[in-house]
Amino acid sequence: MEFVTGICEGREMGLDILTDPAMLEKEAVTTGMIHSIRDMGEIEFVILRRREGLIQTVLEKNTSDGSLKELHEGQAVRVEGIVKAEERAPHGVELKLTGAEILSRPEEPLPVAIDKWKLSTSLEANLNHRAITLRNVRERAKFKIQEGICRGFREFMTSQGFTEIHTPKLGAKSAEGGANLFKLQYFHRPAVLAQSPQFYKQMMVGVFDRVFETGPVFRAEKHNTKRHLNEYTSLDFEMAYIDSFMDICRMETSMLQYVMKLLETEYKNELELLHVKLPNTEKIPFVRFDEAKRLVSEKYHRQIRTPHDLEPEEEALIGEYFKSEYDADFVFVTHYPSKKRPFYAMDDPADPEYTLSFDLLFGGLEITTGGQRIHDYRTLLKKIEERGMEEEGMEDYLDCFKYGMPPHGGLGIGLERLTMKLIGEDNVREACLFPRDMTRLKP
Amino acid sequence: MEFVTGICEGREMGLDILTDPAMLEKEAVTTGMIHSIRDMGEIEFVILRRREGLIQTVLEKNTSDGSLKELHEGQAVRVEGIVKAEERAPHGVELKLTGAEILSRPEEPLPVAIDKWKLSTSLEANLNHRAITLRNVRERAKFKIQEGICRGFREFMTSQGFTEIHTPKLGAKSAEGGANLFKLQYFHRPAVLAQSPQFYKQMMVGVFDRVFETGPVFRAEKHNTKRHLNEYTSLDFEMAYIDSFMDICRMETSMLQYVMKLLETEYKNELELLHVKLPNTEKIPFVRFDEAKRLVSEKYHRQIRTPHDLEPEEEALIGEYFKSEYDADFVFVTHYPSKKRPFYAMDDPADPEYTLSFDLLFGGLEITTGGQRIHDYRTLLKKIEERGMEEEGMEDYLDCFKYGMPPHGGLGIGLERLTMKLIGEDNVREACLFPRDMTRLKP
Repeated sequence: MEFVTGICEGREMGLDILTDPAMLEKEAVTTGMIHSIRDMGEIEFVILRRREGLIQTVLEKNTSDGSLKELHEGQAVRVEGIVKAEERAPHGVELKLTGAEILSRPEEPLPVAIDKWKLSTSLEANLNHRAITLRNVRERAKFKIQEGICRGFREFMTSQGFTEIHTPKLGAKSAEGGANLFKLQYFHRPAVLAQSPQFYKQMMVGVFDRVFETGPVFRAEKHNTKRHLNEYTSLDFEMAYIDSFMDICRMETSMLQYVMKLLETEYKNELELLHVKLPNTEKIPFVRFDEAKRLVSEKYHRQIRTPHDLEPEEEALIGEYFKSEYDADFVFVTHYPSKKRPFYAMDDPADPEYTLSFDLLFGGLEITTGGQRIHDYRTLLKKIEERGMEEEGMEDYLDCFKYGMPPHGGLGIGLERLTMKLIGEDNVREACLFPRDMTRLKP
Repeated sequence: MEFVTGICEGREMGLDILTDPAMLEKEAVTTGMIHSIRDMGEIEFVILRRREGLIQTVLEKNTSDGSLKELHEGQAVRVEGIVKAEERAPHGVELKLTGAEILSRPEEPLPVAIDKWKLSTSLEANLNHRAITLRNVRERAKFKIQEGICRGFREFMTSQGFTEIHTPKLGAKSAEGGANLFKLQYFHRPAVLAQSPQFYKQMMVGVFDRVFETGPVFRAEKHNTKRHLNEYTSLDFEMAYIDSFMDICRMETSMLQYVMKLLETEYKNELELLHVKLPNTEKIPFVRFDEAKRLVSEKYHRQIRTPHDLEPEEEALIGEYFKSEYDADFVFVTHYPSKKRPFYAMDDPADPEYTLSFDLLFGGLEITTGGQRIHDYRTLLKKIEERGMEEEGMEDYLDCFKYGMPPHGGLGIGLERLTMKLIGEDNVREACLFPRDMTRLKP
């Protein structure tokens, strides 16, 4: 009998090996896709695209090698060559080709010039050819950074004793905001897609004390703006035994500090490629909702039109205000009016018109909503009754409180919005591999 | 202006601090839910449930403290006391209570005795009261182990240069197996829920070379068995520049070794709680599909009825065979018949009736399907034509191949099935927080 025992070191070399000074003048084998070929007269630069970056290889045009003569853009290849020092090449080395094996050949040339430094397509064309345009190294780098955010979030949460959960995306009728739900038939029964893991993560706080989830959420919102996606990745956490909603803000601040540190150390190349300057997360100012409204109204001579909500323009101005006054990239806006928060938000005992909740703005855009939740069964029932809501569909959620729940709170972060702001884009679609909006359902 | 600067050490102590010998005879504060109260005559044992485990606290019944008199099961509390050595207590310490603050009170006693060592409910009752029954420490431990598997998978993939991706779960009509798709209306257009990230992860191989995803998949399969869920968490990876599908098997083997190591070191308590003996992943036998069928047919005197597929009973016997012959918990079954594999599976050039694909069985149950994919555009078109399939809905997928793709392959792992086998359960619902099957859509 034969056995599989695990991976073994292959003969193919990545950038880390090729750029090792010990490799200079030595033979090397690597793989990649031919990103571009530049004719330099006697020689050609054949640029390979690998997951770690671009590698410059050099081909002498008068080669007698059959495969080397056939190299074309878009091919996947395995090449052999001698490692040479070359200051002008990316990473300071190039590979002088001695042989090649063509692993696959494209049928047609690429429809987009992906080897340009910056893609020259419209966003629409970029998204239409998404699987191709992402081959551009700058486009691709955005999603390495997104990976780093998600990874940092999970690593930090795990380090703080949070348990990762996987909650269902298919459910029976939910009470939380029926208008924004996608509906479907589930074996001849009506079902909906989860617009957030809210109820489940709260229920799991009674089990694990601290939980987090990273997964898709679905919003049938009829918004077609630069800030909205109808499917996005939500980073959620919920924690028990908080003294105040400020414990949630503190946890998020430490998480963001961890993420920025991780990006700084392990995603350096991508940050440089995209000219990203990491935001300051060392100290994040916090301000009450009503105070924030007043501050921007005064400074920017803007009339307050919606006393119970922040308009997008107002959020942007709050961002501007705290950037100019305190050089702050983030700001916690606290104590949102009860009217505009879900029924499970805890009202401020000192002033029940407002809640013990917050949004976190990053560059003037809401990227997080969170707060302390009601944990007392009777208070929850009273709130549901006052709002004229039905308990139907919430039985399992309410049961948890009936049998006892610890004080708790939590938040949800839009991964694409956080990524977008970090990489300095202004359309959330730029920070989503395959965005879903009112008019886009593919690719 | 005030600022949030991050988390600070609280006064509450977890198990790690309480069990530190330096804490003996010292004052301590901790929080938890009252898991059970045992009357011992003069004293009561008040067992607290925290995320790390159970803590024994001791209450003198003749206390004059008001809150201490009011302690009841199901409450969330913050307690103070003196740490005492006590061999018979969990973790060797107990807390002699001096004070308590009751943070929340249940309205009704729990409907299930969660403090029993093993839940005595039926699976049906367990699932109906899921958010409550999970408060049982053994039930809860299953999902800590599930967390460890998922975490280990991601950590290992990241260490091997794989990029994490988030692909959409909502899409336009997909060509891959229309019968098993959940359908819905997406802003007046027909849409489906993703039954796998297959197309997207292949498309992203052209961008990142190596990708992985952990996320929900949706199967409208009309199976109501112990092995099936209609929504489950799939651990997927896809990698370029493979020489053979065996590279995928090797990567999975190394990943499993990493996961077992992680469980062994960081989830020791949960493994002990559930009496889990970790399976052997050092060497995993592999056997051809037709050979496996022949082996079990001969050994167990069983007629081969379905030459192109493995029946569940046959899978179980293959598991039994390799356990008895080689003490193997896992076995790779390779070269599945082309007829039973999707169009994108690469046929074996040596015998095109079979594919360069595999399943991984764990204890006689399929937990993984994987293999090498077709990467040549014309071969793919030919296969689609031969099968009488339509290219409609696959344009974006096919475009990737038209413009060139590296050789690649990958796999998908059912997280719940892997968890179930690891913890020794025989119904996949036991390994899912909130299972979805043909008759269950809540809680």
